[in-house]
Amino acid sequence: MSVRAIRPAGGPTEADRLARVVLSRAVEPGDRTTSSLVRQLGPQGALRTQLEPKPGSGLPDRLLQVDPVRELDQAQRCGIRFVVPGDPEWPPGLDDLDHVEDVQALGGTPPGIWVKGPMPLTELATSVAVVGSRSCSVYGDEVARWISGTVAAAGTPVVSGGAKGIDFAAHDAALLAGGATVAVLACGVDRAYPVQHRRLLAHLAAEFAVVSEQPPGSAPTRIRFLARNRLIAALTSGTVLVEAALRSGALNTASWAEQLSRPVMCVPGPVTSYTSEGVHEWFRRGGASLVTRGAEVLEIVGAAGQHLPEVRRGEERPRDSLSRTDQLVLEAVPVSAPADVESIAGMCALHVREAANALGRLERGGFVREVPGGWRLAGAG
Amino acid sequence: MSVRAIRPAGGPTEADRLARVVLSRAVEPGDRTTSSLVRQLGPQGALRTQLEPKPGSGLPDRLLQVDPVRELDQAQRCGIRFVVPGDPEWPPGLDDLDHVEDVQALGGTPPGIWVKGPMPLTELATSVAVVGSRSCSVYGDEVARWISGTVAAAGTPVVSGGAKGIDFAAHDAALLAGGATVAVLACGVDRAYPVQHRRLLAHLAAEFAVVSEQPPGSAPTRIRFLARNRLIAALTSGTVLVEAALRSGALNTASWAEQLSRPVMCVPGPVTSYTSEGVHEWFRRGGASLVTRGAEVLEIVGAAGQHLPEVRRGEERPRDSLSRTDQLVLEAVPVSAPADVESIAGMCALHVREAANALGRLERGGFVREVPGGWRLAGAG
Repeated sequence: MSVRAIRPAGGPTEADRLARVVLSRAVEPGDRTTSSLVRQLGPQGALRTQLEPKPGSGLPDRLLQVDPVRELDQAQRCGIRFVVPGDPEWPPGLDDLDHVEDVQALGGTPPGIWVKGPMPLTELATSVAVVGSRSCSVYGDEVARWISGTVAAAGTPVVSGGAKGIDFAAHDAALLAGGATVAVLACGVDRAYPVQHRRLLAHLAAEFAVVSEQPPGSAPTRIRFLARNRLIAALTSGTVLVEAALRSGALNTASWAEQLSRPVMCVPGPVTSYTSEGVHEWFRRGGASLVTRGAEVLEIVGAAGQHLPEVRRGEERPRDSLSRTDQLVLEAVPVSAPADVESIAGMCALHVREAANALGRLERGGFVREVPGGWRLAGAG
Repeated sequence: MSVRAIRPAGGPTEADRLARVVLSRAVEPGDRTTSSLVRQLGPQGALRTQLEPKPGSGLPDRLLQVDPVRELDQAQRCGIRFVVPGDPEWPPGLDDLDHVEDVQALGGTPPGIWVKGPMPLTELATSVAVVGSRSCSVYGDEVARWISGTVAAAGTPVVSGGAKGIDFAAHDAALLAGGATVAVLACGVDRAYPVQHRRLLAHLAAEFAVVSEQPPGSAPTRIRFLARNRLIAALTSGTVLVEAALRSGALNTASWAEQLSRPVMCVPGPVTSYTSEGVHEWFRRGGASLVTRGAEVLEIVGAAGQHLPEVRRGEERPRDSLSRTDQLVLEAVPVSAPADVESIAGMCALHVREAANALGRLERGGFVREVPGGWRLAGAG
């Protein structure tokens, strides 16, 4: 899809778009001053305000150094498009970021997002973020794959951060399930971080989409990871927290989802596992849902009634099909030492003949057996 | 402790006590008709009513066959006491059973309970039930021991059902922690079921208490297990559900705790483990608490403020003690490729000199290092 194809008449003006390119390149992500100015004055007004010299700030200089036309041309040559508010592809969820509190002093709607890949972001209208620790356990890897595979196979795109651990498992399982998956990065969409995921990210950029608010070429920093997390939460219908130690960055994504009133879905794990500690602690604060499989995730993020997981009740047991009387008698047959028919009848408040008839039926059904001293359960040792 | 010692003047009359012995021996546990009659007419009135011949019921005959004086004498010779409402040792929580709905057609306050062991049941005023599957996993065994040991070591008795699996782990860990633990059985307190727990149950009867509403000599049946579960819930301040498959009997105990408005505390486990499926499914219905360690259990059942577990936050990290400026600069240093000081200063909106000074301090602190091309994180590969 070319950049032109997603630029309709009546969308954002070219001047607005170029102002947003300048802000995107020169301002660090999550800068609330800039996003507030854009909301109040529009991108060109925000840019003019930020260009005014301020003591101690290098920002005006950095803004002046950006050549936005050249930035867009270069990006387009690399198959990267810059999506801004007003574009049909602009995810409306990102606008919510202007209306919620900051998390760790970062926040606000980005001036625009850089996207590489053929999948229009409108397909994220119903989507699920699957996030968790980079250093996950085998259990976390398995569960992330199980849940992400179920979600993706049901046609719901899986969004994650392209990192090692849970992120990788989520992307990989979605691909294996034949579903769609999108990575949101803290660096430019033309960079591979971590470098071991070069092939994964190239595949996502070729088949689906890789997204960042950082312009092409940008390096990842801690601040950019934290700012990136708010995009993962804002782009999706809900965030699944698979594994997280007590200070995992995945909890930051969950905080953003909570701020944005998106469902946070916690996957429990062994209480003895430090990679589940952060998830349990988060959950115990209240407000999140506990999920144990993909169907429950789909139920939470899906349209009402679209996904109703069957309630799990254990397997039906042969005894469930017995008559009420036979069940009563069966439940009165001792587990250990045998009991005689009079004693069993007494326990059920039945006549001895009724109890004896029931015991006969139960014996033919293989439930009880007669032994010296009376009756006992057939299965008992 | 002799039977006499717990029979104060002004307590239940001897005739009431003997009527309760007859009902205890001849009526199956959890029989709501009998418990309702006892509540309305007292034990002697209930006994008179139940002695009236009813077509198809063998109960009057069974009631007539009981010799309550002999029952009490025999019990006393075995060190077993019969505790009834009005006795100082009678656990008031059992009276709650008369005022809640049945579970699986069983319910009501028992006519009395049979107790073997020196521990007065008044010590269960604050106590915790730890229950779960008989066929538990290694994980369940480990967590039951961890939680039960913490609870018991804090001076709070642990109550369970004396069964294999989670029950055994709960009792055993409480003993190892030097705490108190009580078994509530579905058979007579003079019987060992399962037989492999003969030594455990003998130890509990010698040092603490073994409790049952079944008179001495009674065999365990499925109905009696279900009826027993309501006593575990009613005798304790809250029930911890450690592991339970979808149809585990432990869920029945949790149902009773819920009916009785006692806290149900669910221990999460791997979502891939069928022994945690019942716990998670129960929890997702709502109303229960998620607990991950004994301190959280104590907080829930303890007196307000008596046990306040410290909130777990990950370990303090060296970077937490840095100045705000140094933290800002540190977070702007790229994780992968190095950045020069001008670029880092720009990310932080700091003067280049300020950023350079901060980088110097961070280098001395071992956080960053200078490499060809600029600065990068010291820890990064």
